[in-house]
Amino acid sequence: MRIGILGAGQLGRMLALAGYPLGFEFVFLDPSEEACAVKLGTHMQVDYANGVALRDFCSRIDVATYEFENVPLSTAEFVAARVPLRPGPAALAASQDRLAEKKLFEELAIPLPRYVLVDTRAELSDALVQLGLPAVLKTRTLGYDGKGQAVIKNSRDIEMAWARLAGRPLILEAFVPFEREVSCIAARGLDKRIAFYPLIENVHRSGILYSSQPRLADPLQTQAEGYVTRLLEKLEYIGVLAFEFFVVNGGLLANEIAPRVHNSGHWSIEGADCSQFENHLRAICDLPLGATNLRSASMMLNCVGSEPKPGAVLRHAGVHLHRYGKQAKPHRKLGHITLTAQNTAALSALRDKIEPLIPQF
Amino acid sequence: MRIGILGAGQLGRMLALAGYPLGFEFVFLDPSEEACAVKLGTHMQVDYANGVALRDFCSRIDVATYEFENVPLSTAEFVAARVPLRPGPAALAASQDRLAEKKLFEELAIPLPRYVLVDTRAELSDALVQLGLPAVLKTRTLGYDGKGQAVIKNSRDIEMAWARLAGRPLILEAFVPFEREVSCIAARGLDKRIAFYPLIENVHRSGILYSSQPRLADPLQTQAEGYVTRLLEKLEYIGVLAFEFFVVNGGLLANEIAPRVHNSGHWSIEGADCSQFENHLRAICDLPLGATNLRSASMMLNCVGSEPKPGAVLRHAGVHLHRYGKQAKPHRKLGHITLTAQNTAALSALRDKIEPLIPQF
Repeated sequence: MRIGILGAGQLGRMLALAGYPLGFEFVFLDPSEEACAVKLGTHMQVDYANGVALRDFCSRIDVATYEFENVPLSTAEFVAARVPLRPGPAALAASQDRLAEKKLFEELAIPLPRYVLVDTRAELSDALVQLGLPAVLKTRTLGYDGKGQAVIKNSRDIEMAWARLAGRPLILEAFVPFEREVSCIAARGLDKRIAFYPLIENVHRSGILYSSQPRLADPLQTQAEGYVTRLLEKLEYIGVLAFEFFVVNGGLLANEIAPRVHNSGHWSIEGADCSQFENHLRAICDLPLGATNLRSASMMLNCVGSEPKPGAVLRHAGVHLHRYGKQAKPHRKLGHITLTAQNTAALSALRDKIEPLIPQF
Repeated sequence: MRIGILGAGQLGRMLALAGYPLGFEFVFLDPSEEACAVKLGTHMQVDYANGVALRDFCSRIDVATYEFENVPLSTAEFVAARVPLRPGPAALAASQDRLAEKKLFEELAIPLPRYVLVDTRAELSDALVQLGLPAVLKTRTLGYDGKGQAVIKNSRDIEMAWARLAGRPLILEAFVPFEREVSCIAARGLDKRIAFYPLIENVHRSGILYSSQPRLADPLQTQAEGYVTRLLEKLEYIGVLAFEFFVVNGGLLANEIAPRVHNSGHWSIEGADCSQFENHLRAICDLPLGATNLRSASMMLNCVGSEPKPGAVLRHAGVHLHRYGKQAKPHRKLGHITLTAQNTAALSALRDKIEPLIPQF
């Protein structure tokens, strides 16, 4: 099976690492020369709008997928007209525009924070009156890792936020005083079966994911699975999807979805029977989904901006280093570390040893 | 770190899959066009005796290793004169010639089956008188997976064995009525520390490894570690080595060594905290060795000659499929399956389900 991947970042890299053992081969289409997955397959270094190259891409593969949600929709539609694209363009469209995403949540009766569309400075003022402070101003499209958003806590923040983001379609969201942030990662196969990983608790720093830890028997597991099921079925989704939620008053509020493998699921490489990467490939290649149970207590710490010394972290048992082969740069995700231990107490003790070795961001 | 690997078969492939997460890159030197690791790095498709190419190979890498023991010794020495070759040529020399290997065992007081050198038909007759029947006639060099050897059970077998193997330096070994076959896999780092995996019980069919299962608290663990330690220290060995033993009368007799990662350790990818592949790379790159403890009960089944249907085996939890991307051919190792389960009883039950799905050889 030859798999074409739109995008060739670390998610593509980890998909390929999971896919070779299944006998798959990979073609990456990514305009970046530096894309870190390219050593693991054929790299077509072309623009996403290059029709001739896209046609060639499609002729070389049996199935296509994407590893980031900012692939142009027209590219996805072009590919989907020629080879199976899994997940399909509908999921991409929903996740590319915060308004479309929120409308979808509303249609599916999935609770979400209050929001107001904002295109002008006057609309921003009105929206702030409606939602109150604090609130978060976000671009409707192309946001990731805290980019394209600004928190407005007081009246001084308003002009700064407006200056930074004006000129693009915006959305103002009520700031959610969340107790926790969690994500639910699920895979849906061509046989329509859905496999759920345990609910994952996430901590962000400066808008970037800092740590993720799957929680066995989280009381919100059932609620999350219900929402994710509605969404996957509505989108006729094939592959792995991540759904991020805020936990408020003990219940879930929808934050956003990612129609792909997700940073909060990287622990699954060592922590689950079958990783999110393998399950995505199994799903899009019509193989049975793998088991999502935990193999042991596990969690993930991100390496952002700079990396720890490999020798320092690797001298501890239960440490699994994943470097992405990228040039260091502030706020750039350069790698992650999965910790595994026999139980959560041992995991906490290991975390206490490893966390100080990772440069903070 | 750029790692050069002499040979590009499945062992090289699995080394690369283990090495990318550590941030390593790979250059493979292998004359075969079909070598199955080549998609995972740069492939120099040249002869092992090509000095110009070997010089180029050395200029592209920081450290070299080999993934099979039939790399010409002169090639290893050429490389070792230019970049660190780990393990070094001494280990290769010892494992390439059964006589050198046995002399080494004798020097280290490691018990081994009786043997006699055979170069002529008359010497074979004398050797058979000395050792009695049954016995095994083997080529001194280039044997693997049961190739280059013939069991002599009765007088009729003698001429057949001689016809097949005559013309090369031979060795006759007393047939060992073993209770079990086991292997001990160990990694030795530049800091001289040695890490041992649990002793592995192996079953062969037609001279080819069929199954491998690590055994916790095997009564022979200590004895095996003692022999392996002597050998590693004598060879000033760096990297992973496998030592295969016969168990006779409850004790170990040396069979042979492999100066590399080994088929009987493939279960370690999922079954151990740090796999044999990662540990080999850690050792040769001067990183701390990883923990060798079992993460759960696990075992490996080889796929030889033909492969099971992926969908059939993957519908069971705890099944980890490893395809090597090779063309099917009788007696060729095409892949393996690792089974993991919470305990040995569950592992046996899983094995009973999966074994019938794998084409027998």
